[in-house]
Amino acid sequence: MLTLYYAPHTCALASHIALEEAGATYESVRLSFRTEDQKKPDYLKINPKGRVPSLVTDRGIITETPALLIYIAQTFPAAKLAPLDDPYRLAKVQAFNSYLCSTVHVAHAHRMRGLRWADEPEAHLAMQRKVPQAVGDCFALIEREMFEGPWVMGNDYTVCDGYLFTLSQWLAGDGVDIDRTPKIAEHFKRVGERPAVRKAVADETRELKSAA
Amino acid sequence: MLTLYYAPHTCALASHIALEEAGATYESVRLSFRTEDQKKPDYLKINPKGRVPSLVTDRGIITETPALLIYIAQTFPAAKLAPLDDPYRLAKVQAFNSYLCSTVHVAHAHRMRGLRWADEPEAHLAMQRKVPQAVGDCFALIEREMFEGPWVMGNDYTVCDGYLFTLSQWLAGDGVDIDRTPKIAEHFKRVGERPAVRKAVADETRELKSAA
Repeated sequence: MLTLYYAPHTCALASHIALEEAGATYESVRLSFRTEDQKKPDYLKINPKGRVPSLVTDRGIITETPALLIYIAQTFPAAKLAPLDDPYRLAKVQAFNSYLCSTVHVAHAHRMRGLRWADEPEAHLAMQRKVPQAVGDCFALIEREMFEGPWVMGNDYTVCDGYLFTLSQWLAGDGVDIDRTPKIAEHFKRVGERPAVRKAVADETRELKSAA
Repeated sequence: MLTLYYAPHTCALASHIALEEAGATYESVRLSFRTEDQKKPDYLKINPKGRVPSLVTDRGIITETPALLIYIAQTFPAAKLAPLDDPYRLAKVQAFNSYLCSTVHVAHAHRMRGLRWADEPEAHLAMQRKVPQAVGDCFALIEREMFEGPWVMGNDYTVCDGYLFTLSQWLAGDGVDIDRTPKIAEHFKRVGERPAVRKAVADETRELKSAA
């Protein structure tokens, strides 16, 4: 059995979507960042980094979105969520995921997680002021250089699509107009209509029933 | 033929090491960050992100360290640089690499790349002041929670080891005493003695012969 620990409005949605796309049998456990569930001792036993997502498997616990996405693709090969047997194409998938986690997500995180990188409130405000430009530049680069269309990787839907969808959700809050990147804007709408995506989103937005 | 574009003192060393460990036939091209080679038009055609590493292959160009590391492991399976056929263990490798690129490298980058996340010089200084703590905390977490020993992933040397070695090199400059994490300190020494690592480091530190 797989158990996904997530918090709403976080990058964990990308793994949640992948599990749905894969047709996986899994449970999901919601954490609330508002009550800082992710820093409570019980959860730190699952993920000492105090972050989401975490996926509990029969063999142990996996963290970090790019790792989970390829794990899910490999564990449910029938869903064809990544070109696992083509090292070059898999590397393109991985490069995209890596750019999202190490550059795009990080640019976004300077809006609310400034404490990670500076102590002074003035510095946090300076970071917040830069977010629209930093995140906007990332999405412009994706639109111009990476997005193959109709899906991120071309003709085949992959884990990259749910991951890009997840980060696209943050654009409005980051002060970035998604319509400045029309291919990504159309992709965002189209991915949001997939049954698996609707199910994952619905699960995350239903009334809070339980938290760790 | 493979061609690795790198700059000295960057995370590209991790891929350089992996190519050597794999016994790959490749060329390396050095860029100088001092003269901002990575932002010159010729290089932006190779990597529009203006970063290193980039690996030019017969099929196209791959960027982002975690993508390159798994690509190299998959392309040279005899070197056994990653547990490719075990989705769970591969996910652990990927989670480690992902933590390095999205959290550890990012914590380090606030020392010199503050312009990415704020415009004001005061904010950059605030970021620099936080680097020793932020990077130190990351390494303490690796030492305590991730490092299996004797190699990062336990009994088998993997691409994670060259990657951790690469980031460990930055600790002194980041104001972090490596001896506060004795397992990583010993690992750093041991990895540095491997012939493949010595060869990659020597290549990167030899006199500058050519740049793009």
